Amino acid sequence: MSQKPMMPGARDKYVPFRQVPLTDRQWPGKVITKPPIWCSVDLRDGNQALIEPMDSDRKTRMFKMLVEMGFKEIEVGFPAASQTDFDFVRQLIDERMIPGDVTIQVLTQSRPELIERTFESLKGAKRAIVHLYNSTSTTQRRVVFGLDMPGIIDIAVSGAKLVKKLADEYEAAGTEIVYEYSPESFTGTELEFARDICAAVADIYQPTPQKKMIINLPATVEMATANIYADQIEWCHRNFKYRDSFILSLHPHNDRGTGVAAAELGYMAGADRIEGCLFGNGERTGNVDIVTLALNMYTQGIDPEIDFSDINGVRQMVEYCNQLPVHPRHPYGGDLVFTAFSGSHQDAINKGFKALETSNSQVWDVPYLPIDPKDLGRSYEAIIRINSQSGKGGIAYILKNDYGIDLPRLLQVEFSKVIQRITDETGKEISPALIWDTFQKEYLRRTSPVEFFEHTTVPSPGHHDQRLLDASIKFNGFAKTISGAGNGPIAAYVDALGKSCGIRMKVRDYHQHAAGAGSDATAVSFIEAETVDGRVLWGVGMDSNIVAASLKAVTSAANRIASPVSAVA
Amino acid sequence: MSQKPMMPGARDKYVPFRQVPLTDRQWPGKVITKPPIWCSVDLRDGNQALIEPMDSDRKTRMFKMLVEMGFKEIEVGFPAASQTDFDFVRQLIDERMIPGDVTIQVLTQSRPELIERTFESLKGAKRAIVHLYNSTSTTQRRVVFGLDMPGIIDIAVSGAKLVKKLADEYEAAGTEIVYEYSPESFTGTELEFARDICAAVADIYQPTPQKKMIINLPATVEMATANIYADQIEWCHRNFKYRDSFILSLHPHNDRGTGVAAAELGYMAGADRIEGCLFGNGERTGNVDIVTLALNMYTQGIDPEIDFSDINGVRQMVEYCNQLPVHPRHPYGGDLVFTAFSGSHQDAINKGFKALETSNSQVWDVPYLPIDPKDLGRSYEAIIRINSQSGKGGIAYILKNDYGIDLPRLLQVEFSKVIQRITDETGKEISPALIWDTFQKEYLRRTSPVEFFEHTTVPSPGHHDQRLLDASIKFNGFAKTISGAGNGPIAAYVDALGKSCGIRMKVRDYHQHAAGAGSDATAVSFIEAETVDGRVLWGVGMDSNIVAASLKAVTSAANRIASPVSAVA
Repeated sequence: MSQKPMMPGARDKYVPFRQVPLTDRQWPGKVITKPPIWCSVDLRDGNQALIEPMDSDRKTRMFKMLVEMGFKEIEVGFPAASQTDFDFVRQLIDERMIPGDVTIQVLTQSRPELIERTFESLKGAKRAIVHLYNSTSTTQRRVVFGLDMPGIIDIAVSGAKLVKKLADEYEAAGTEIVYEYSPESFTGTELEFARDICAAVADIYQPTPQKKMIINLPATVEMATANIYADQIEWCHRNFKYRDSFILSLHPHNDRGTGVAAAELGYMAGADRIEGCLFGNGERTGNVDIVTLALNMYTQGIDPEIDFSDINGVRQMVEYCNQLPVHPRHPYGGDLVFTAFSGSHQDAINKGFKALETSNSQVWDVPYLPIDPKDLGRSYEAIIRINSQSGKGGIAYILKNDYGIDLPRLLQVEFSKVIQRITDETGKEISPALIWDTFQKEYLRRTSPVEFFEHTTVPSPGHHDQRLLDASIKFNGFAKTISGAGNGPIAAYVDALGKSCGIRMKVRDYHQHAAGAGSDATAVSFIEAETVDGRVLWGVGMDSNIVAASLKAVTSAANRIASPVSAVA
Repeated sequence: MSQKPMMPGARDKYVPFRQVPLTDRQWPGKVITKPPIWCSVDLRDGNQALIEPMDSDRKTRMFKMLVEMGFKEIEVGFPAASQTDFDFVRQLIDERMIPGDVTIQVLTQSRPELIERTFESLKGAKRAIVHLYNSTSTTQRRVVFGLDMPGIIDIAVSGAKLVKKLADEYEAAGTEIVYEYSPESFTGTELEFARDICAAVADIYQPTPQKKMIINLPATVEMATANIYADQIEWCHRNFKYRDSFILSLHPHNDRGTGVAAAELGYMAGADRIEGCLFGNGERTGNVDIVTLALNMYTQGIDPEIDFSDINGVRQMVEYCNQLPVHPRHPYGGDLVFTAFSGSHQDAINKGFKALETSNSQVWDVPYLPIDPKDLGRSYEAIIRINSQSGKGGIAYILKNDYGIDLPRLLQVEFSKVIQRITDETGKEISPALIWDTFQKEYLRRTSPVEFFEHTTVPSPGHHDQRLLDASIKFNGFAKTISGAGNGPIAAYVDALGKSCGIRMKVRDYHQHAAGAGSDATAVSFIEAETVDGRVLWGVGMDSNIVAASLKAVTSAANRIASPVSAVA
């Protein structure tokens, strides 16, 4: 079964990673029995890799959530590199937002002006980790710094000396400083050189078993299979100076999609601490995902000491702060991970639940579900729910794929409740045709109290940016023409409905798209309306004319305001 | 640094995985040097886990792409469980769509009526893998089947006997049958039992080194750290009967987010073959991701024998067929993986590229980029492009966040080229204000040859679904009123422009949204226009009136058609 070469250039272009000289490795026989010291770097490594970095409000929300979840160490920024990071550190300290058992961490390159500025940001803090780094890999030494090994060690050591000096001053003033050092791009660094540079820095810091420093060994770029990272960590664990006086920290990235495994094996290999981000945010392919790491431990009977009992809430906050989605197949957090589409899986899960009930056992043991969704604030109902064959959650997909209608997210939520009501009442699966029929009844075919027929708009004489609109409608069964004014037909029609029919609303949002292609396509309009008493609901209109589609959407919203009972209830 | 319990229920509820009795494990010292036999299960395991399973058209596209990429074994369905799967297998065979060097694979549970139906689907095939499975885990034996070990072995053996009998008949008729057996839920099965049941099945099939069978050991649910799966595989590799006569196949899922690592370590532990899906589609958290696996090998100098030189094309097809997104941080395929946001990363990458150029070396060695984006059909330009701070690719985000304008994806591409031209010429970073100014110049402020002022539309007398439109414009500097007809104002205006100004276009698509909230918000309209000679370009219009916004967008497109040189060039 020999195949023809498909990407033949590989051999000349890429150099395989080196193996680690470790003949008696211990880590493959180890088992994880307790959580590491976690350090969230969401506000630094995660934030710096965002298309739109967090503003102060988002940072504050993220920080508060991290604290509530139980993180005790939080890297909050790179204050010397960014004024917003500096200001955020000041805000945390000045507004006394850091609980007594939480330590903030700040990152700095090993350059005197940056170190000084970093310390400036920390004035008045109770306790802080100063995280010093410089890049040590073979490639970066040659290409970026043009320095030999002693030159690179000198960068680290002179930085550490300044940190030590400033830390002594701060300690005298009541701020406890914890030292952290990272040989950045560690995975591309010769192990002996990593050992030497970390020893040189530790020689300055003089850690003790009572006052440990942190040595952080980042997979700045993930360059090898996860076992190699574990070998590297075990080598360092066994060969680094001052081992009883430093906390061995991991900082895996995910360039090979194996960041979680690398963290787990590296932790088994002797590490004490893991830096990562919620849902694996971070440079390029992301930092290691703390959600997955922690919940992997949880499924092994270990309290991760981070609270994920409301994983949906965590996810929403992370998506809000990062403006990046969590993938539907993300372990634990994804929309689809507690779903079972295949009949045999559904059957086995049902039998598993029944067996669990009758056994009266506390021990979780359900086929295809390695974790009880309830432990994460998710539910068994959700498992079967999202399934186009059995209806419900596939709603948006069916409307999009079968009928070309792309529902705004909030309308999806609103309409799913309508469908929910039907399935709850009938207990039956719901077909795509019934979904479409229900959608039409609920949004498109309502004609009471208002039925829309025709409109004409003209520029308002004397008001350049005003339009006058006449609409012929039926109201409570009687034909009439209503008139209004506004900066466009929607505003004018809303005005007319309010004045002539007493149905008042504010348009909060609208979307419109073509169903089908070409100028002859049908337009679908979505109006999000707010009533005078603050209720929010949607109207939908379809027409080949884009204005008529919008006016029909307003009509749909008006009818739903006037007859709050669902058309299909 | 002891923490308070955050999820304290773990200990009583979850049982940790068992370690494997393997004191002299060999896999941690192995290195991957050649690709496995790949088997794509996108059309079966992947497809069955979709919200909207693929229709025949999508399946055909997916199959063709898999063949073109170089897959030689493709699981195409579960024909006995689904009529659409059955029909698809028939279509592949009847329409002679299977190349001579490609073998299709079909899955069946070990039940006589399903096995018979499965063979029925294969009539006339040249060669096929019949993949028989039954569930063997401790939990499923007890909960789902209520059978002891001999009872479960009996299910497998009686199925294998029937498969063997039918295979002999098919072989006589010219169809070569390859046997595959999976002890499903292998990771929850005692290793000794997996050994015994596989031996019992192999005793029926009587494989030889010349005619091997496939034994597939699925992590149906990923239940342990990746090293444990590797231990399990090595144990089987060393303890299973007929080792020289079977191909050891892996089928990892991703419940702990370590499917890729488990596949890599399992492959090092003695496997020959890997079943998985493109971009990790599949039940719950997905099957192992073949894209990542293959390209991880590629970065180690190994031709994966699967072609990913157009990864964007592969991604588009997969997203189209699965209706699921590829995450922006997906290794190799994500939008953000060849980006560098931080200044120090950008600097190091630039220096790396320069060093590569001057060194005249073929060997790839650029900081923060473990693979040359060009090898995947992606580009260096893209790397710096997407960055809100340094401009360029953050374009769409800046327009959305700073100016409330949400560009359609294809317009993003078009406009990024305009911006690219500026940055290439000036070599400078581009500010949000300049992006906005450029956008206005290119799309919103063009008035030549057409400047739009005002419009009136009325229903067409006698044609219920026609509108007549008069628009007052300037054309080449002269004021005139043009008239057209269509099913809505856009179509009518396009008609008018064609008849009166000779600017002809077809509207392929349009989008419209509100910038800001409320009925007084400004509408932004996007028109994708196609010229008579087949060029495609966009026009954009903004106005408080939704019709005027659309007509301005048509005007914008018309002016860009008439003056193809960019307004900012």
